[in-house]
Amino acid sequence: MHVYFVPHTILYDGTQLTSLWAYRSFGLLGDSIVAFRGPCRVHFEHMVDLEDVRKQSPIYGDDMLHFIVEQFDHDLERAVLRQRLLTAIIKEILEQKGHGLKRAGDDLYYQERKLSISIATSTPVSTMIHMALNITAENTPVPAVGLVELGWPVALIPELAKAIGQAYADEMQGVKHSRCKVKGVV
Amino acid sequence: MHVYFVPHTILYDGTQLTSLWAYRSFGLLGDSIVAFRGPCRVHFEHMVDLEDVRKQSPIYGDDMLHFIVEQFDHDLERAVLRQRLLTAIIKEILEQKGHGLKRAGDDLYYQERKLSISIATSTPVSTMIHMALNITAENTPVPAVGLVELGWPVALIPELAKAIGQAYADEMQGVKHSRCKVKGVV
Amino acid sequence: MHVYFVPHTILYDGTQLTSLWAYRSFGLLGDSIVAFRGPCRVHFEHMVDLEDVRKQSPIYGDDMLHFIVEQFDHDLERAVLRQRLLTAIIKEILEQKGHGLKRAGDDLYYQERKLSISIATSTPVSTMIHMALNITAENTPVPAVGLVELGWPVALIPELAKAIGQAYADEMQGVKHSRCKVKGVV
Amino acid sequence: MHVYFVPHTILYDGTQLTSLWAYRSFGLLGDSIVAFRGPCRVHFEHMVDLEDVRKQSPIYGDDMLHFIVEQFDHDLERAVLRQRLLTAIIKEILEQKGHGLKRAGDDLYYQERKLSISIATSTPVSTMIHMALNITAENTPVPAVGLVELGWPVALIPELAKAIGQAYADEMQGVKHSRCKVKGVV
Amino acid sequence: MHVYFVPHTILYDGTQLTSLWAYRSFGLLGDSIVAFRGPCRVHFEHMVDLEDVRKQSPIYGDDMLHFIVEQFDHDLERAVLRQRLLTAIIKEILEQKGHGLKRAGDDLYYQERKLSISIATSTPVSTMIHMALNITAENTPVPAVGLVELGWPVALIPELAKAIGQAYADEMQGVKHSRCKVKGVV
Amino acid sequence: MHVYFVPHTILYDGTQLTSLWAYRSFGLLGDSIVAFRGPCRVHFEHMVDLEDVRKQSPIYGDDMLHFIVEQFDHDLERAVLRQRLLTAIIKEILEQKGHGLKRAGDDLYYQERKLSISIATSTPVSTMIHMALNITAENTPVPAVGLVELGWPVALIPELAKAIGQAYADEMQGVKHSRCKVKGVV
Repeated sequence: MHVYFVPHTILYDGTQLTSLWAYRSFGLLGDSIVAFRGPCRVHFEHMVDLEDVRKQSPIYGDDMLHFIVEQFDHDLERAVLRQRLLTAIIKEILEQKGHGLKRAGDDLYYQERKLSISIATSTPVSTMIHMALNITAENTPVPAVGLVELGWPVALIPELAKAIGQAYADEMQGVKHSRCKVKGVV
Repeated sequence: MHVYFVPHTILYDGTQLTSLWAYRSFGLLGDSIVAFRGPCRVHFEHMVDLEDVRKQSPIYGDDMLHFIVEQFDHDLERAVLRQRLLTAIIKEILEQKGHGLKRAGDDLYYQERKLSISIATSTPVSTMIHMALNITAENTPVPAVGLVELGWPVALIPELAKAIGQAYADEMQGVKHSRCKVKGVV
Repeated sequence: MHVYFVPHTILYDGTQLTSLWAYRSFGLLGDSIVAFRGPCRVHFEHMVDLEDVRKQSPIYGDDMLHFIVEQFDHDLERAVLRQRLLTAIIKEILEQKGHGLKRAGDDLYYQERKLSISIATSTPVSTMIHMALNITAENTPVPAVGLVELGWPVALIPELAKAIGQAYADEMQGVKHSRCKVKGVV
Repeated sequence: MHVYFVPHTILYDGTQLTSLWAYRSFGLLGDSIVAFRGPCRVHFEHMVDLEDVRKQSPIYGDDMLHFIVEQFDHDLERAVLRQRLLTAIIKEILEQKGHGLKRAGDDLYYQERKLSISIATSTPVSTMIHMALNITAENTPVPAVGLVELGWPVALIPELAKAIGQAYADEMQGVKHSRCKVKGVV
Repeated sequence: MHVYFVPHTILYDGTQLTSLWAYRSFGLLGDSIVAFRGPCRVHFEHMVDLEDVRKQSPIYGDDMLHFIVEQFDHDLERAVLRQRLLTAIIKEILEQKGHGLKRAGDDLYYQERKLSISIATSTPVSTMIHMALNITAENTPVPAVGLVELGWPVALIPELAKAIGQAYADEMQGVKHSRCKVKGVV
Repeated sequence: MHVYFVPHTILYDGTQLTSLWAYRSFGLLGDSIVAFRGPCRVHFEHMVDLEDVRKQSPIYGDDMLHFIVEQFDHDLERAVLRQRLLTAIIKEILEQKGHGLKRAGDDLYYQERKLSISIATSTPVSTMIHMALNITAENTPVPAVGLVELGWPVALIPELAKAIGQAYADEMQGVKHSRCKVKGVV
């Protein structure tokens, strides 16, 4: 599984959540987790979370750390399970700085303030996850917290992104390992 | 999904990891997470984790809190993903008593001492997970820690078991919710 | 599974056969069977049954009872099997008024006159069924019969719609029950 | 799909519900529906319906018309859907003699008396259905009705068996047809 | 499985790789392999092979023998396996004229010159393969060889197309046969 | 994917076709192709090819080159497709010595004499292939040919085994590559 941190900023507008984005953009063929920094502005027509559309909840942020995961199987339930595992992994890594977080499904909170947004969906050839963490909490639609406040200053973002990407890739490798070491039962 | 705590102790010997055990034993039809307290003695011929068999790692403990999960689909990779999510959930709940734990795949540790054992496998009609937490760390094959030492005395075990079971059931409900609220992308 | 009868009329033009229509329209999240009354006019570009397109068979009716089923799995063969089971259920319920019907796959007939139209297809995140029964047989492209003539006057349509929806939901519940009570064989 | 009526009687004891039974017994390779006449005696250890085992409901009958269906895919939910469709097909055919039946899931009743028993399960390489109809209602564990009483005398059993088998095979052909004539929707 | 050779030429521009093309064009319902002769011009916006798009490798040829395969299941890995088996079958048939070919995945070469292009992809209801063999090697983007040079003159093309189509259909029949004659192991 | 040639001889008696054999025997975890040299004696009770059992065709040979493939997915049709691709790969490699072979499904022939035996089946956690090539054609149940006669003397067997294993592993890698470079079509 490819783990990659894009060295420049990218505006996340929802069009990145498209099959083979990592291949078309960076030549990464196969399963990948790609991280980048950038603002977030998703117009309603590009939202795939219809709960947000129904509630007319806008999705935006001035400065976020984004992850785009693509895995080449075809099971949306697996994708949602992986999304929540990614959320748990991020929580475990962020807490190393001493601030306890709360996970509710695919959301992370610090003292009732929202740190993250996330969605998992399917493409005709793969499943994909978008996960984004506020770097600062300015200009967000709900009470929010940012990575800086949690002890991860901007200078650490690339390193943090790689640590999260690598931990997710390791977890996926571990899942494969576990899947291949058991016999069935009756 | 049924959440049930068995009021009496049961010796876990590996034969509980068999399809429809919850239905045959307690009349629980459909997806379930069943918890019980009891010792653990698994003979090599009942071990489904062939890594343990290869290493000749015995599996036993004098007093453990066991969970048996059965879900009626047929995808071992999903089962392993769920197993790790269950591990993350248990970590999140146990840490409420203030002792930080470390998750490594499906294992939980406290300061290099092992708290848990776990396996996920498939049956002809479902997938199953066994997860067990030491209540005390006496008579275990490796350096271990128990729930009592982590702030969960024996009197709290039934309540803890139900809290974990309910959190897992809620997570599965949330996974279904997330799976049904998105449209696909191209 | 949600069972819902829409209290107002809707023109069925084929655009209702789109993923998460029940969620976007009525907030029903997850598996659902939604019924409504209304005319039917499907332009060729919205037809998903390419047999009808090839034969240039128009699909219309002045007054029909429609059902839209959405189930969140990804197996078109299951969807077709469910469609035929829904057809059998409708036959069983309608025959309570004493008129014997004939089922041919997903079609219902009364004395060589057509009562129903139906299609099952897949979306990127689910499978869907459209089933519609003539309320009256006026202005239909083929010799047809309507529910009124079969003993179900207009005043009974909401009740009939709910009975069919509930019977289908019960059948799906029963399918899940049957799927979870058996062990495998060799 | 092979449709075959075995010319001699066979005691159904549950061992027929084993993968490739039709191939091993009659050389029928691939999907098949095989019918035969014979008594029914299933010991508890051969029962795959654990609901019957839990209730200690014996399964027997002196003279029954049996169907064994095997289809080479690996989806137990599909198998249960097909089982209920087979039940609906049998109802439609039997009612030609003028006695209205009631279907409840995979069971058929005539005036509260049970006509049929059925189970669907999975093998390592296929899914299977057993369906049996009482020919006479003598010596059955619950109030029962037989085919003879419903207007299908013993002399008609072979013909009836073939009609049911052929109708099921035609339905499966129709399901495949329906699955291959639609385009997807968004 | 339908095997069909279109009696007139068709320009392959990529739009043929669309679900139910064989049904819409020729009334062939269900699995099919359709062959035709014609030039090849695929604009980048119709290319599904994003490796070609990334490399800006144009896809064209003045005179090619095309195959369009559609099979109604939903597994892209199966489709790629079938594509390579089709490539092996074509190699086996072409070598009857005495010129040894080299297969590299889904490509065929004669002495470092390219004979074929191919892609496998998924539709919402099926999987599809496009495979095309140069008839002559004029006006191709890379060093190429054509069927004529390999001993298959233009007059033999229809016969060759049918032989390949029939061999592929026979292979698929054989795959089904093999899948239905084994029992599982533990 | 692990490629391994066992340095000692093994009697193939059918018990090697069991899930995780490569892991239990050689510590190879995950997908693998393992080759070894040895005689072949499969008793009828260990035969999984019921066609052979029905025909009472014994399976034996004094000196064969065996391949055991295990891949951790759960689709028997994929396994059969891979089995035939493996057969095509072996043909391509063996023909380098100048003797043309004929492939018929999963069988290889040289001038009407049989070179190989093969079967593909499923386990509860994976799918498996057994493929064996006669090294010499002595003491075989049907007219046979051996590798020695085809230009592959005994001294070359280890090298040949590794070449075949590596070519299969490369092909599987290529299949994954092809599966991950395409977008879907409508």
